[in-house]
Amino acid sequence: MSQRVGDEAVTKAMGEIRSGPSSRRHGDTLPHIHRVGSPPKQTLFKEIKDSVAETFFPDKPLNNFKGKSFFGIFVLALQSLFPILEWGRDYNLKKFRGDLISGLTIASLCIPQDIAYAKLAHLDPQYALYTSFVAPLVYAFMGSSRDIAIGPVAVVSLLLGTTLSDEISNIKSHEYLRLAFTATFFAGVTQMLLGVLRLGFLIDFLSHAAIVGFMAGAAITIALQQLKGFLGIKNFTTKTDIVSVMRSVFQAAHHGWNWETIVIGLAFLIFLLVTKYIAKRNKKLFWVAAISPMISVIVSTFFVYITRADKKGVAIVRHVKKGVNQSSASEIFFSGKYLGAGIRIGVISGMVALTEAVAIGRTFAAMKDYALDGNKEMMAMGAMNMVGSLTSCYVATGSFSRSAVNHMAGCKTAVSNIVMSIVVLLTLLLITPLFKYTPNAVLASIIIAAVLSLINIKAMILLWKIDKFDFVACMGALFGVIFKSVEIGLLIAVAISFAKILVQVTRPRVAVLGKLSGTTVYRNVQQYPKAAQINGMLIVRVDSAIYFSNSNYIKERILRWLSEEEVQRTASGLSGIEYLIVEMSPVTDIDTSGIHAFEELYKSLQKRKIQLILANPGPIVIEKLHASKLTDVIGEDKIFLTVADAVSTFGPNEV
Amino acid sequence: MSQRVGDEAVTKAMGEIRSGPSSRRHGDTLPHIHRVGSPPKQTLFKEIKDSVAETFFPDKPLNNFKGKSFFGIFVLALQSLFPILEWGRDYNLKKFRGDLISGLTIASLCIPQDIAYAKLAHLDPQYALYTSFVAPLVYAFMGSSRDIAIGPVAVVSLLLGTTLSDEISNIKSHEYLRLAFTATFFAGVTQMLLGVLRLGFLIDFLSHAAIVGFMAGAAITIALQQLKGFLGIKNFTTKTDIVSVMRSVFQAAHHGWNWETIVIGLAFLIFLLVTKYIAKRNKKLFWVAAISPMISVIVSTFFVYITRADKKGVAIVRHVKKGVNQSSASEIFFSGKYLGAGIRIGVISGMVALTEAVAIGRTFAAMKDYALDGNKEMMAMGAMNMVGSLTSCYVATGSFSRSAVNHMAGCKTAVSNIVMSIVVLLTLLLITPLFKYTPNAVLASIIIAAVLSLINIKAMILLWKIDKFDFVACMGALFGVIFKSVEIGLLIAVAISFAKILVQVTRPRVAVLGKLSGTTVYRNVQQYPKAAQINGMLIVRVDSAIYFSNSNYIKERILRWLSEEEVQRTASGLSGIEYLIVEMSPVTDIDTSGIHAFEELYKSLQKRKIQLILANPGPIVIEKLHASKLTDVIGEDKIFLTVADAVSTFGPNEV
Repeated sequence: MSQRVGDEAVTKAMGEIRSGPSSRRHGDTLPHIHRVGSPPKQTLFKEIKDSVAETFFPDKPLNNFKGKSFFGIFVLALQSLFPILEWGRDYNLKKFRGDLISGLTIASLCIPQDIAYAKLAHLDPQYALYTSFVAPLVYAFMGSSRDIAIGPVAVVSLLLGTTLSDEISNIKSHEYLRLAFTATFFAGVTQMLLGVLRLGFLIDFLSHAAIVGFMAGAAITIALQQLKGFLGIKNFTTKTDIVSVMRSVFQAAHHGWNWETIVIGLAFLIFLLVTKYIAKRNKKLFWVAAISPMISVIVSTFFVYITRADKKGVAIVRHVKKGVNQSSASEIFFSGKYLGAGIRIGVISGMVALTEAVAIGRTFAAMKDYALDGNKEMMAMGAMNMVGSLTSCYVATGSFSRSAVNHMAGCKTAVSNIVMSIVVLLTLLLITPLFKYTPNAVLASIIIAAVLSLINIKAMILLWKIDKFDFVACMGALFGVIFKSVEIGLLIAVAISFAKILVQVTRPRVAVLGKLSGTTVYRNVQQYPKAAQINGMLIVRVDSAIYFSNSNYIKERILRWLSEEEVQRTASGLSGIEYLIVEMSPVTDIDTSGIHAFEELYKSLQKRKIQLILANPGPIVIEKLHASKLTDVIGEDKIFLTVADAVSTFGPNEV
Repeated sequence: MSQRVGDEAVTKAMGEIRSGPSSRRHGDTLPHIHRVGSPPKQTLFKEIKDSVAETFFPDKPLNNFKGKSFFGIFVLALQSLFPILEWGRDYNLKKFRGDLISGLTIASLCIPQDIAYAKLAHLDPQYALYTSFVAPLVYAFMGSSRDIAIGPVAVVSLLLGTTLSDEISNIKSHEYLRLAFTATFFAGVTQMLLGVLRLGFLIDFLSHAAIVGFMAGAAITIALQQLKGFLGIKNFTTKTDIVSVMRSVFQAAHHGWNWETIVIGLAFLIFLLVTKYIAKRNKKLFWVAAISPMISVIVSTFFVYITRADKKGVAIVRHVKKGVNQSSASEIFFSGKYLGAGIRIGVISGMVALTEAVAIGRTFAAMKDYALDGNKEMMAMGAMNMVGSLTSCYVATGSFSRSAVNHMAGCKTAVSNIVMSIVVLLTLLLITPLFKYTPNAVLASIIIAAVLSLINIKAMILLWKIDKFDFVACMGALFGVIFKSVEIGLLIAVAISFAKILVQVTRPRVAVLGKLSGTTVYRNVQQYPKAAQINGMLIVRVDSAIYFSNSNYIKERILRWLSEEEVQRTASGLSGIEYLIVEMSPVTDIDTSGIHAFEELYKSLQKRKIQLILANPGPIVIEKLHASKLTDVIGEDKIFLTVADAVSTFGPNEV
């Protein structure tokens, strides 16, 4: 800031800041030995560097590299990209026992879920199994969460299914499959880019409330979709909104639902829900719920096989391809008319998948108190989906339900994902043909039981209690999803979240302060009704940085308060207001529009013969007040360290 | 909030908040007779009502209507719509003298400017004069600014000219004129809607910095456009970017510029700039600059008439239609292929016009300290442009230069606009044919002299000094306008403004606090390097409301600080950190994501055996902490009125 004119004058004036004549002070006011400080001067370059660093590198990722040799940096960089190299060195048999058990548990849960979820994406079952083989392996090497269980999830499968079939309505065509791989590839690219460009904070714009609503809406939509398999309906709508689905269901009722299917579905749904309930009541029995889907599949498959119920109209899986993933590198559309659609669907599903994974990762990281690097996590997810798209997988992410089971089963590291991956591989190699007679109704039951836990009614009640606006955002997303589509619900969620930010930045809170008797503490009179206003003074606090978006509002709000207070005080026979004290503590920053607003406020106050006094401007604010010479206009002797100082200087003697 | 469960428990716990054993306290700490207060409970309806009221009706427009009879309300409503009914009653001869002189002054300034500005919009001169007749009249009845001078302005004329000719390249066609009226109509509708729907705050999103840059860019673009008239070039580019224009100018140089034109233009440009300089040096001589354009027109017209310079290639105005405005109601496209373009151009030009008018209105309102109702102002502007579009006018707004002259000439009320309007009417009726021989070069000189004052270099230097980010926004808008187009410049300005808001809400400031020796005041250690940190404690202050967009960042920022401090303190042989005090004063609001972040922070701290202490949560925050039962988790005894209280309770004895 070497361009600043008249810096000496400012410094000189700064030196003259006093806290008023001490003879007027009494009571327990503060010793006045401190002045409003200016932060150390920074060069422009450092200022910009710091600002960029705090925005994009708040975690200071390069801190560890300082003072290391070239080889040291290379090792650290490698460790940073592949955290397994770091934690792998401390790996021991005890940890492996935990990982083995949890890996086997989540494998038994993921295999039936995979076969079911593939249906949501309108893909053949093996593609979901492929995904559960490749993605966890890649994640285990690159990811930093110790609890997350990787694989296909219900919501992303549904999102892919609806968006892909909007583009290519023939879901059996080879183009459909190719577009799925394309979308997966670009989902990975999106995630990777967000991580590399350190734009991870963008997913913070999807608020918790919006996610709760979106998840619940998606869960309801998915459950409703299962009515097809559950009731054995043959002609089912391809739409996902509740109106179309219910119409389909009731139209089918006339031609008769398939009662054998319903009996099978209902029986296993009850079984699954009961085991879920048991696990919920007794946390130690979590494994009961974890293996019940596998048991349902085995029992129902065996049952159908011996009764040949499939001949009575019970729909079965029929065919799951045996063997491991084939390369799908040549299947991805890198040009042609589907490229645009692939990118669009990829970006959306990549962001949604990321949101889910990061939410899970954060939850467990907080529970066990280990650091989770959001940007690194995104790079891991991105790499995993890019590799997946080349090996016949579709979009994978962290699964809420399986991660919880993984955690409860005592997983220690990402090795549990490797164990799961190996089990899935063995399944693909050896036993997939056995799934031929698995009835679709059981898969529907498994999905319904799984997605029910995504409807977090407790969280919704809490939203209602804590923040009505959040509740509205939640419901908006929920109804958007179930009455229109997954994409519309997502759009509503984002729009409401943004609207909230806009309201926040244009209408910050401004509070009138009063003095707590017997102290030098000034507090919001709304919160502390006993706090007393000072005769002849109005003390207000601006609770936000002052920017172009709110500077006019703040100025006008203060002036309006002043007018209202003057009327009120005159009416109650008090003396008029002579001093306006603005408590600036919460004002962390001010821009040129804010400076202008203060100039205008000062001019308006001058006309009214009221003095403007500032209390405790922060480091950046005081610097900008100096730079704009506003301190000279207002007067350096009008800027105080605390409200109490200002009051003791200018206030009535009895204070 | 009657739904809250366990309110009694909360209230009971609240009663138990103490400030720690008083035996441990000494020094000048505060008397501990106050508790963290909860604001009075509100019903859901009141809460929502208050929030909506503060967002859309911060000025409480209906306050005056309270307790009035039906007739009283009617009169007030009429007065509110037509402020002239209110101030008109106090109008007297003394005020009229001021208004008459200023009205005549701005009329003499506006007539030559109008004829020149019409060219920027590719319209015949009379349409600008029509606009200066109708618009000021409507505004005088409905507007609340006393100093603004209404009429066509350079920037909006340029914006209309470029956007309209993008749609209809044949600027001489009748369609072009009709589209101009259509755009004007929808500009009025936009302004009216923004006022009626009380969305006036939307224009606050165009920051001061962006406006400075945009205006300067537009001024440069307009000045460059004048090279056509100034140099007498016949084939001139229709593009506005600096590259195309300069290419045009130098290509024309080969075929010879018209030297007679250049002489006339240069002579009068020097005359205009000298008078401007005189007026600037001596504020009392402002009228010299105000009437110099009129003198230039008269002298140059007379000169061309007697020398018949137009036969030597000096381009002249040729024809200005005599008579008053005709109705253009039937000319507006309410359907057909141009409707969409009309709406789009109308919305953009309406917003830009409004930005300019509101900026002017606010400046003078602050100078004279009178209230300006932004939403009412928008309705007046909207009405004025809608009426204008029906009477052969194009978009009018407040002019920077003429408003300043109006103010300096001593205007008292909007009557000066009426005086100006009458003068323009007389001009239209009587003397327009005399403008036939006015050389275009003089008009170009008038425009150049006028727009130069829109390039506010002082403001740019101030931007650089105060806020580098604002400076970047300003330059972005400026270069966007001159190198690309007016629209792109506007887009860049808005985009940069929004980016700033996003950074602000995702990366709020968090400060570490220290104690100022001999006081109970805790301040940012960066600003007050002498402030001492407390042994065994880390005190941080969050300087923003905690929302979904920043809650994770805040949590992680605090945890990172904690880790860094622990390392540092251990290195310097100090004891580890046992308490984390979060000063919550600036945290005006918290949403569910914020509550979750605090829960996660609490869990992480527990693992590290560090106690979480909150100081001075605000009214909304304490309510939400209770609603979410987070107070029970953290412990009511960990919530204090001030940091000093918390330190004196848990801190080391020597503090």
